[in-house]
Amino acid sequence: MTILDGKKVSSEIKLQVIKEIKVLKKKTGKVPGLSVVIVGENKASKVYVKSKDKMASELGIKSNVIEFDENISSVELIKKIKELNEDGEVNGVLVQLPLPKKFNTWEVLTNINPDKDVDCFLPTNLGMILLNRANIFPCTPAGILKIFDYYNINVSGMNACVIGRSFIVGKPIAAMLTNRNATVTICHSKTKNLADHLKRADLIVSAIGKPGFISEDMVKQGSVLIDVGINYIIKKDDVYEHCDELQIKKFERKGYAITGDIHKNAYKKSLYYTPVPGGVGPMTVTMLMYNTLQLFKKKQDLLK
Amino acid sequence: MTILDGKKVSSEIKLQVIKEIKVLKKKTGKVPGLSVVIVGENKASKVYVKSKDKMASELGIKSNVIEFDENISSVELIKKIKELNEDGEVNGVLVQLPLPKKFNTWEVLTNINPDKDVDCFLPTNLGMILLNRANIFPCTPAGILKIFDYYNINVSGMNACVIGRSFIVGKPIAAMLTNRNATVTICHSKTKNLADHLKRADLIVSAIGKPGFISEDMVKQGSVLIDVGINYIIKKDDVYEHCDELQIKKFERKGYAITGDIHKNAYKKSLYYTPVPGGVGPMTVTMLMYNTLQLFKKKQDLLK
Repeated sequence: MTILDGKKVSSEIKLQVIKEIKVLKKKTGKVPGLSVVIVGENKASKVYVKSKDKMASELGIKSNVIEFDENISSVELIKKIKELNEDGEVNGVLVQLPLPKKFNTWEVLTNINPDKDVDCFLPTNLGMILLNRANIFPCTPAGILKIFDYYNINVSGMNACVIGRSFIVGKPIAAMLTNRNATVTICHSKTKNLADHLKRADLIVSAIGKPGFISEDMVKQGSVLIDVGINYIIKKDDVYEHCDELQIKKFERKGYAITGDIHKNAYKKSLYYTPVPGGVGPMTVTMLMYNTLQLFKKKQDLLK
Repeated sequence: MTILDGKKVSSEIKLQVIKEIKVLKKKTGKVPGLSVVIVGENKASKVYVKSKDKMASELGIKSNVIEFDENISSVELIKKIKELNEDGEVNGVLVQLPLPKKFNTWEVLTNINPDKDVDCFLPTNLGMILLNRANIFPCTPAGILKIFDYYNINVSGMNACVIGRSFIVGKPIAAMLTNRNATVTICHSKTKNLADHLKRADLIVSAIGKPGFISEDMVKQGSVLIDVGINYIIKKDDVYEHCDELQIKKFERKGYAITGDIHKNAYKKSLYYTPVPGGVGPMTVTMLMYNTLQLFKKKQDLLK
């Protein structure tokens, strides 16, 4: 069993992005620009936005966080998005979710110019994945494929089981793995006998959100286990059940710990696995930066 | 084993479309418009276009076939598409495929206004399917779901096996069945041990294109068999192997016969199956008309 070290892969990609931005800056005099829009006071969202802003700056991306009070109207919010759509220095526009309840999220998001849809949430960009013509992918699935590339994991011919059918993870990764010649089964809350599907899988991508749900007996010997779940646990028993010593020590300091969907005992049967934390998680924000760079490059090509 | 009679379902839908168009005509003074563009002398394409034109007229859709010589340039072709995009009387624009080789099919198709993309081939419309927000679907998958609706076949919880990963059939039907709570596996040319997947399936949708490829021993007792394959066979032995008496008689007159991907012996084990011909086939052009009506209705709503 080999750990797929998302921190390491993420660092490598960040170095590549930094390097490429330097070269492009010399060549064009410009750097990629990312605008992150946040509305309201959701604490978790603020933390995410801050980390995105920080990483962008570190990588040489011109980052711009636009904070709005919850009282802003839909019309004003959309007006701002349209301004960002027109701004030649902005390559990626991201609206931090969730928006406060009064907003129609779909209406807001679909006002982003698809060429600046750095999260890859818009229909035209998701459709390009189905068509196997995409050059941008949602961050989490994109990060998973980068991990495969780094560790030379060829999924062609594998039986892959994706658990979860969201448009953010499940459905795009299913199409992306299909495009890479895996035979993909998409499981979800209405799937009967999930364990039977899992036991046959050479590759499992789990985006369930239940701590340690996938047990040792549900996975095949020699499988690849990719864990997208980030589950917060606060009960001591749960932490001892799911976490390693390092996490337990953290728990004793902080009062909470993080674990994935896949039980640590299942790791033993795997050929490769992504730990939680330190697997898929560190890839996500990095891929946002990578996507910003891709959109920048695409725009430069168009301008030539 | 119950035959899923595509001709019957198709007739029902045509009656509904006729009825609805009459009502809408009274209400708005307008009828749906479909423009079909055909380039070159492909005989099969000409037959398809003629049948589309004929059915449109029968249903009360204003049909308009635009024929171009193979010598037309890309620029002229795209200019025509843009005119149709602007034409208020045209709700659906269809470019008959395949285009002669000199054309870049993708470039031509992506000039169709997505709101008039009656084939549902464009990224934004395919992406809407992933997002479970679509109101238009590619004709063949759409026809399959209409058959399910007609016969009250609820796919929720079923293990479905889709064979083929095209953007015209395989990938959209996989997403559509997932949205209806089936657990879908997408198989294709790189799938290992296809028979193992098929044997576990409660529902098989086959779009392979190999006469009688799916044999009796590959399917589960009590499964639902949907055959998208339309395979022409001309050898007498093949015809006797795959066809029923009616088809054999036709073969003796015409020198060819049609059969699906699923061997007739497999039908015996099924709960429901679509025959070839007479199953999914008759639905396809009908769903094109249905889609034209949907686009017309959508536009009327927008204009209100």
